[in-house]
Amino acid sequence: MAAGWPRNLTPGEGMSGKLRVTYLPSRTTVHVPAGTTLFSAAHWAGLPIESTCGGRGTCGKCAVRVLEAVPEPTPADHRHLSEARVVEGWRLACQHEVAPGSVCEVPELQRVPKAATMGVGRFVLLEPNAHTVVVGVDPPSLEDPRSHLARLRDALAAEGYEVRHEPSLLPRLARAMADHPASVTATIVGDHLVDVEPGEARGRAFGAAVDVGTTTVVVTLLDLCTGAAVAVGSTLNRQAPFGADVIARMGHAMTGDDAIVELRAAALRTLNGLVERACATAGVEPRRVAEMVVVGNATMLHLLLGVDPRSIALSPFVATFLEPQDLRAADAGIEIHPDGRVVLFPALGAYVGADVVADIVATGLAREDRVRLLVDVGTNGEIVCGSAERVVATAAPAGPAFEGGQILSGMRATEGAIEGVALDVDDVRLQVIGGDVRPRGICGSGLIDAVAELRRVGLIAANGILASRKEATLAGHPLADRLVDRDGVRAFALADDVLLTQLDVRELQSAKGAIATGIGIAMDALGVGPDDLDEVLLAGSFGTYIDPANARALGLVPPVPVERIRAVGSAASEGAKMALLSFREREVAFELPEFVEYLELSGAPDFNERFLANLAFPPLDVPERSP
Amino acid sequence: MAAGWPRNLTPGEGMSGKLRVTYLPSRTTVHVPAGTTLFSAAHWAGLPIESTCGGRGTCGKCAVRVLEAVPEPTPADHRHLSEARVVEGWRLACQHEVAPGSVCEVPELQRVPKAATMGVGRFVLLEPNAHTVVVGVDPPSLEDPRSHLARLRDALAAEGYEVRHEPSLLPRLARAMADHPASVTATIVGDHLVDVEPGEARGRAFGAAVDVGTTTVVVTLLDLCTGAAVAVGSTLNRQAPFGADVIARMGHAMTGDDAIVELRAAALRTLNGLVERACATAGVEPRRVAEMVVVGNATMLHLLLGVDPRSIALSPFVATFLEPQDLRAADAGIEIHPDGRVVLFPALGAYVGADVVADIVATGLAREDRVRLLVDVGTNGEIVCGSAERVVATAAPAGPAFEGGQILSGMRATEGAIEGVALDVDDVRLQVIGGDVRPRGICGSGLIDAVAELRRVGLIAANGILASRKEATLAGHPLADRLVDRDGVRAFALADDVLLTQLDVRELQSAKGAIATGIGIAMDALGVGPDDLDEVLLAGSFGTYIDPANARALGLVPPVPVERIRAVGSAASEGAKMALLSFREREVAFELPEFVEYLELSGAPDFNERFLANLAFPPLDVPERSP
Repeated sequence: MAAGWPRNLTPGEGMSGKLRVTYLPSRTTVHVPAGTTLFSAAHWAGLPIESTCGGRGTCGKCAVRVLEAVPEPTPADHRHLSEARVVEGWRLACQHEVAPGSVCEVPELQRVPKAATMGVGRFVLLEPNAHTVVVGVDPPSLEDPRSHLARLRDALAAEGYEVRHEPSLLPRLARAMADHPASVTATIVGDHLVDVEPGEARGRAFGAAVDVGTTTVVVTLLDLCTGAAVAVGSTLNRQAPFGADVIARMGHAMTGDDAIVELRAAALRTLNGLVERACATAGVEPRRVAEMVVVGNATMLHLLLGVDPRSIALSPFVATFLEPQDLRAADAGIEIHPDGRVVLFPALGAYVGADVVADIVATGLAREDRVRLLVDVGTNGEIVCGSAERVVATAAPAGPAFEGGQILSGMRATEGAIEGVALDVDDVRLQVIGGDVRPRGICGSGLIDAVAELRRVGLIAANGILASRKEATLAGHPLADRLVDRDGVRAFALADDVLLTQLDVRELQSAKGAIATGIGIAMDALGVGPDDLDEVLLAGSFGTYIDPANARALGLVPPVPVERIRAVGSAASEGAKMALLSFREREVAFELPEFVEYLELSGAPDFNERFLANLAFPPLDVPERSP
Repeated sequence: MAAGWPRNLTPGEGMSGKLRVTYLPSRTTVHVPAGTTLFSAAHWAGLPIESTCGGRGTCGKCAVRVLEAVPEPTPADHRHLSEARVVEGWRLACQHEVAPGSVCEVPELQRVPKAATMGVGRFVLLEPNAHTVVVGVDPPSLEDPRSHLARLRDALAAEGYEVRHEPSLLPRLARAMADHPASVTATIVGDHLVDVEPGEARGRAFGAAVDVGTTTVVVTLLDLCTGAAVAVGSTLNRQAPFGADVIARMGHAMTGDDAIVELRAAALRTLNGLVERACATAGVEPRRVAEMVVVGNATMLHLLLGVDPRSIALSPFVATFLEPQDLRAADAGIEIHPDGRVVLFPALGAYVGADVVADIVATGLAREDRVRLLVDVGTNGEIVCGSAERVVATAAPAGPAFEGGQILSGMRATEGAIEGVALDVDDVRLQVIGGDVRPRGICGSGLIDAVAELRRVGLIAANGILASRKEATLAGHPLADRLVDRDGVRAFALADDVLLTQLDVRELQSAKGAIATGIGIAMDALGVGPDDLDEVLLAGSFGTYIDPANARALGLVPPVPVERIRAVGSAASEGAKMALLSFREREVAFELPEFVEYLELSGAPDFNERFLANLAFPPLDVPERSP
């Protein structure tokens, strides 16, 4: 299957490490990593199983009848199921891992949870990880000297919630119980009892989905009862003054522990500022925000926790952590409910971060039969390819060209940047950010357009060489007078002050060559060619602005029909929102690192050879590719 | 069994709620609460079972062969034991709860752990909950891109440690792994990975045992490798200015949230100051202290966590928490290793606190066949009575008399206090704290001595009435001229400025009457009389100074032969030390609230009647009581 990919470079086990489960009556089959529960595997298969405790074996509602590979019953099975049912093979789906050849029968949902379409056309059941529960509590008496804590835990346990708490809950518990209320409202996040209030305060739990980008941080505030986004805010990452891209940011971090403290503080100021604003906009007290889900690349998440990212920067490029983290908000420095939880998505590798895992969740890439390629173009191009059967991921070191770095007139996508270029017979039409302003430079999408258009009109050859004015004039090219010489280097004048030089084209070739190589290696590992791709998804905000036809014309993406290339916007934020609103989606997200095979490009033996081959542009006028 | 004790006042289930387990080959039988593991029950029975993971099912060393009531095997059993062994009935003792009629065979210990005699003649295996582990870690490489965290966790898992971590570990992990050391030293507390350092730093873990008394706080610093106490320090609780006894302290706390913040800060200053001094004395860096075990009464522990204790003060006298708490040190405000753990012992009831649980651990009261009575005399007299078969506990509201409160010349046991009184034929001999200083007043032990002696020499009647000078003179009593009148109240002049008045005697009668009533109710609940008591243990620093014969003469303790009355000193500190040095002792301690039956005296229907009957003193010259 993995064509030419050396075995030791595929840390995942491919299908060989996965187990097949079949669910009746629908006969749905799914392959999941060993260790996945029957409950979670059913969700992979799109079959929700009843549960109110979030798969913790305490509510007893997720019973399924196992017909093949029946596991031995656990104490939780005996606690929740009658002996007769246990003998018939009924088991709590959340308490048993899949076994080779598992077959089970899933009862219909008793209660149909609210659902919404989220992410990239994903249908999601609204079962947030954080919620409020109103429970009656027995009044204390001389005959019943249980502590307030025991009284509350017993009341919650009777409703199927087995919770733990931070000791910082206890002062609030004393206050909530002071007047012996008949009922209290508990705020529960996963199995954490985060708050308790006297009386009924149902439905007042909010969540924050956060995408910490190197450039931009986005916070979405969600009403966890309705699933609605009640406020969204974004701003530049306040770390930006310490380095524009992730490489520069790591470089600053490596100057010493103080720099890490400084970077962490800048990230926290950014996040907390956005949360405060979002809460103010929506009229929500920050302490009503019970949970935050954070995605971002590994470096951003390291810095958010004050962890030195140098091991990511230096060979052999390992992260200190890739695993999901679950922090008490106050310990994390996040200004929501102090005992609220801050959950960091897992990452796949040092350069395929939690944001990409969130992309996979949002697109359902690992859960559909269609074979799809997802590319997030940036300093590091992140590449994910596959389907429910198998997924591989890798990262390609594109360098800063797409973000305007190393480009003579390069700039970020801010006012005055050329973001689109179209060459007419004898005219240059520019799309400039800010509308009717004088162009000051060119950003990534403009660069791609410019080079693709120059290639289309014959002024850039397949090997990337820009025509000289002399050649173009000789050939009678109507745009010949735009070709200029700048300090002995050929250039094309997009505007009075904006030149695109031969060196800029070389930078772009190098950047797109790296990404194309990563894509090629990932597709080879998977054994698929361009014809097998049902869709190419361009993720990230940059992906939104790339012209798909031009991306294909440059060979940045494989030669697929242009209508199969689709921008999916800030899918990472969507993935974070889904994890807030559906504990099932979160569970799947946390299993992705086991499911997805991570390829380390630095270790690919033929990387350089393939990279050099990928510097050239594809032939012009690529027809719908023949098989 | 519970003679005359109404059923609804015994929340525990007595023997009826306990299960019997037999261990072979020794045929040792033990009764333990349902829910106790086979592993822990064996420890109750004094049979240590091999384990290095602390009973977490990860080291696989605690296998026993279950012969009767064989439980279904768990995944952990299958992971660690061969199929043949599972079929033969071998199970991991830590993974299975006792069942009715469990019988199992325990292999001999392969490795005999270090042991020490601790507490009150208890033999303890030195297996601390906190320890350092040196593990080799694979170097990262392009072929092995696991995160540092995964690499470390895998290395620890291979040694049988499955750990969790606070995210605050991650910055230290990045530093420890920066130069790719071949091995690292992990500091593990229970299942918390608290620290990691490059190289081998074995054997550098310390623990602090803390007894937070209302008056005095004691910290003992232990070397967790050798079990030795390397420093001990004690000081007055800095909360003292806010109220001398626990009732006054609660009163201050009830003046508002600021008062609670103030009391908490005072407690933390006391503790942190002692820890700092102990560390300085022993030459130990505070961050080497990986764990602190705290005992104290419920009010002290509530205030230490900033929890309003008012529900303890007001009927129906419930605590916000009685359950053990496990805190991250930095969150608790304790200045040891920031990720170190601070563990609060469980309490039995709002007035039978964690200090009494520690007393029970230190004396082994709940684990020996002897029937013993433990009394901690103070503002609240805590009373525990029983044996391995059954234990009851209660608290009696003695009031402040034993601490010098409500006594005309009463004072704390500080310089100038009369702490001992002996009456000769015609002389009064005083023992004064500070030696050759002028007596300024009388403390609790002096008060008991004085009244007992006056009773012995016939100057106090069984009903507590002090003789008048006239009566004594008429009777020719050689001490008659010590009898004076003070504002119309009879008094005995112990010294020039120190009078013992009739009202003082009444206060003492009331205090000892409350405690005697509590003891009587507890013994009745248990169905034992004075003859059944193998030992009466006087706990607490006050207990150390009481003259056993005089305590008996006043009826403060039951009429047992005086050699069976024994002061056990600060047993609570000993209990805390044992829990630090032996995870098995800690497990038993945490099970005690299930095992011990808590009696709420306020609810006893005949309390007042019994109390009035107990105000009188016993007949003089109690002989060794006839059966």
